[in-house]
Amino acid sequence: MKGVYKQFRTELLDSCVPFWLEHGVDTEYGGILNCLDRSGKVYSDDKSVWMQGRAGWMFSYIYNNIEKKEEYLTLAKSCIDFARNHCIDSDGRMFFTVTREGKPLRKRRYWYSETFYILANAEYYMATRDAACLEAARKYFDFILAMYRDPSTDPFKITPKSYAETRNTKPLANPMILLNVAAVMRQADSERFDYYDGLMTEFITQIKCFYKPEYRATFECIDAADNSVILNSAPCRVINPGHDIECSWFLLEEAAKRQDKELIAFAARMFDDAFALGWDKEYGGITYFKDILGLPVEAYEHDMKLWWPHNEAIIASLMLYQVTGDEKYKAVFQQVRDYAFSHFSDPEYGEWFGYLRRDGKPTEPPCKGHTYKGPFHVMRMLAKCMTLLK
Amino acid sequence: MKGVYKQFRTELLDSCVPFWLEHGVDTEYGGILNCLDRSGKVYSDDKSVWMQGRAGWMFSYIYNNIEKKEEYLTLAKSCIDFARNHCIDSDGRMFFTVTREGKPLRKRRYWYSETFYILANAEYYMATRDAACLEAARKYFDFILAMYRDPSTDPFKITPKSYAETRNTKPLANPMILLNVAAVMRQADSERFDYYDGLMTEFITQIKCFYKPEYRATFECIDAADNSVILNSAPCRVINPGHDIECSWFLLEEAAKRQDKELIAFAARMFDDAFALGWDKEYGGITYFKDILGLPVEAYEHDMKLWWPHNEAIIASLMLYQVTGDEKYKAVFQQVRDYAFSHFSDPEYGEWFGYLRRDGKPTEPPCKGHTYKGPFHVMRMLAKCMTLLK
Repeated sequence: MKGVYKQFRTELLDSCVPFWLEHGVDTEYGGILNCLDRSGKVYSDDKSVWMQGRAGWMFSYIYNNIEKKEEYLTLAKSCIDFARNHCIDSDGRMFFTVTREGKPLRKRRYWYSETFYILANAEYYMATRDAACLEAARKYFDFILAMYRDPSTDPFKITPKSYAETRNTKPLANPMILLNVAAVMRQADSERFDYYDGLMTEFITQIKCFYKPEYRATFECIDAADNSVILNSAPCRVINPGHDIECSWFLLEEAAKRQDKELIAFAARMFDDAFALGWDKEYGGITYFKDILGLPVEAYEHDMKLWWPHNEAIIASLMLYQVTGDEKYKAVFQQVRDYAFSHFSDPEYGEWFGYLRRDGKPTEPPCKGHTYKGPFHVMRMLAKCMTLLK
Repeated sequence: MKGVYKQFRTELLDSCVPFWLEHGVDTEYGGILNCLDRSGKVYSDDKSVWMQGRAGWMFSYIYNNIEKKEEYLTLAKSCIDFARNHCIDSDGRMFFTVTREGKPLRKRRYWYSETFYILANAEYYMATRDAACLEAARKYFDFILAMYRDPSTDPFKITPKSYAETRNTKPLANPMILLNVAAVMRQADSERFDYYDGLMTEFITQIKCFYKPEYRATFECIDAADNSVILNSAPCRVINPGHDIECSWFLLEEAAKRQDKELIAFAARMFDDAFALGWDKEYGGITYFKDILGLPVEAYEHDMKLWWPHNEAIIASLMLYQVTGDEKYKAVFQQVRDYAFSHFSDPEYGEWFGYLRRDGKPTEPPCKGHTYKGPFHVMRMLAKCMTLLK
C-alpha cells in the first residue's frame, strides 16, 4: 500500500491543507471561514462554531502527527481564540453560527459546538502544553457530560423540540461523540486516564444498545426508556450508514487498544451491515439515508452521496483490514477509495466536493466548504490513514 | 385548450382524488394520513397538521367548484374535526405533527398550521353554511393577524430561533399566505368584505417590498427594518422560484379582479424573473433554490425538482395568458405542463411523485405523500385550471 500512503500524503499536504490555509483563514477577525465555493471563494461570511473547533483540532492533530509546521498551530490557536472570545454565551453554552466578526446568529439545543471546542483545546494542549487549554477542555468535558447524564443541568432553557410524554427517544450521536471526545481527553489529560477510560466503557455499552441484530442495523434513535425501535414513524426508522461506519471505527480503535475480541467482532458487524445497506449497487457510492424497512425516507437528500460517509468508510475498512487481517476489508477499502477519489476529489482547485447527486455529479454550483463541511472529515481520513499505513 | 381541460379533469378525478380517498383516509382515528408511498401504502403514522387543514380546504373546494360529492365533504369534515379535537394546544396555538391517534409530536413557532385550518373552515362553511366553522375561521384569522402584526401577542413563548439584535429579517411567506387566506375569508365571510379587502391591499404592499428590480428577483427574506437585501450571508440570498411563481398568481388573481393594470404588470414581472432564473436549461424543470449571485446554495436539495413549483407555474402561466393575452405565457404553460405530466404524474398508481433528482428521476424509494406533500398543490392546480379553462 505504499502508493496509497503517497496518494494520501499528497492529497492532505498539497491539496486540502493549502486550500484551507489559502482561502479559509480569516486574517481580519480570526478563526476560519467555512463557506467556500469550488475555487475557494468565500460565499457566506457566517461562521460555523463547530468548524472553529474542528479546524482547531484538525490543524493541531496534523502538527502532532504528520508535520510540525508553525502555521498549523497559528491557525489552530486563532480558531480556539475566536471560539473562546466570540462563540460562548453568558450561560457558558456555545453558539451554532456567528457573523464573521463574531456576533451570535444562532444557538442550538445540542452541545456539539462544545464537543469540537473540547477536541481543539485538548489536541492543541498536546502540541503546546498550554495549561489554559487543558483547563478549558476539562471544564467543557465535565459540562457536557453533566448535560448528557442529566439534561436539567443545561443552563440553556430552550423550549423542548418535541413532546417526550408522547415519544421519548435518545440519539446515537450523543454516546458516539462522547466516546470520541473521551478518547482524546484520555490521551491529553493523562493524569485522569482512569476517569476517561471508565467513561469510555460506559459509552461503548450505551452505543451497543442502538445496534439491533434482528434488523442488521444501527438505529439513529431508539426509545429512551426501553431501547426499543419505533417502527411506525418514518424518522425513527432512518439508518445513516455513514454515521454507523464512523461509529464502527470509533469502537474498533478502542477495541484494538484493549485487545477486546468481542468488541472487534461487534465493530466489524456494525460496519458490514452499514456498508451492505448503504452501498449503492447501481451508481456506486454510499447512500446518505436508508429506511430500515425499505420504505421512503422523508429527508429530500436521502439518496445523495455526501463526502464524509466515504471518508469514514476508508478509515474503517483500512482499520478493519489491519485489525482482522481479513482481505475482504482491503477490497472494500479499494472500492471506496476508488469511488471517493474519482468523484469527490477536485485536482483542479483542491479539496473535495461535498455534495453529489445520486449519479455522482456534484450539485451545482458545487462547494468545498459549508456550514457542515470544513477542514475536518477529508483531512482526518487522510491523516488517520497515513498513521495507520506507516 | 379543450384537450387540456379533459386531461386535467381526468388527472384530478380519476387519479389524484381516488388516490387520497382510497389510501389517505384514516377511518379509525379520523383526518388524513399524509405519508404514502408510491402505491399508496402508509409508511409513517405521524400526521401533518398542515395537511389536515389543506385536505379540509381542498376537498371542500372541489365540492364547491368541481363536483358535489358527499364523500368530499365527509373527508373535509373529518380533517377539520381531527384538527379541532387533537391539533390545538391549550394556549390556542396548533401543533405541527401529531401521532395517528392525535397526541402531540411537535409544535413549531410558525403559525402555518393555523392558516390551513382557517382555509379549511372557511371553504367548508361555503359548502355547508355550518356557522361554527365560520366562527372558527374568523377567530383564527384574527389570532394569526395579531401575531403577524405584533409577535408578542403569540401565547407560545418559544425560545427565539435567532438573534434579532444581530440580524433581523422578515419572510416573504407571511404576507403571502395571509393574502391567500384573506382572499378566501373575503369570499366566505362576505359580511366583513371590506375588512378583508383592506387587509389584502396591505399585504400586497408588503409583498412588493420583497421584489428587487435591480436583482430581477423576489427575495425570501429581507431586513425587517429597512427592507434591504443581505448579501454577505448565503441563506439570505436564496431565491425560491416556485414560491415566487406561486406569489405571482396570488397577486395576479387579485389584480385581475381589481382590474389593476400596474399590479398585473408587477405580477407578470415577478413571474417572468422567477421562471427565467428557475428553469433548468440543461435538464428541464424548475430548480428548487437558486442563489441570486450564482453562488452555492447550502440546502442539499437545492438543485432537485419538486412537484409543487411546477403546479404553481402551470396555474400562473395559464392565468397570465388569460389576463394579458400574451402568447408567450401559453408557450410556458405548455412547456411546464409537458415536463410536469411526463416526469411527476404516475399513471400506474395515481397521483404525482413529489421529489425528483436534477435529472428528473424520482428519488428512491419514491413517495406520493410526505409531511410536506398531501392532497393540495397538484389538486389545487388541476381544479384552479379547470375553472380557468371553462
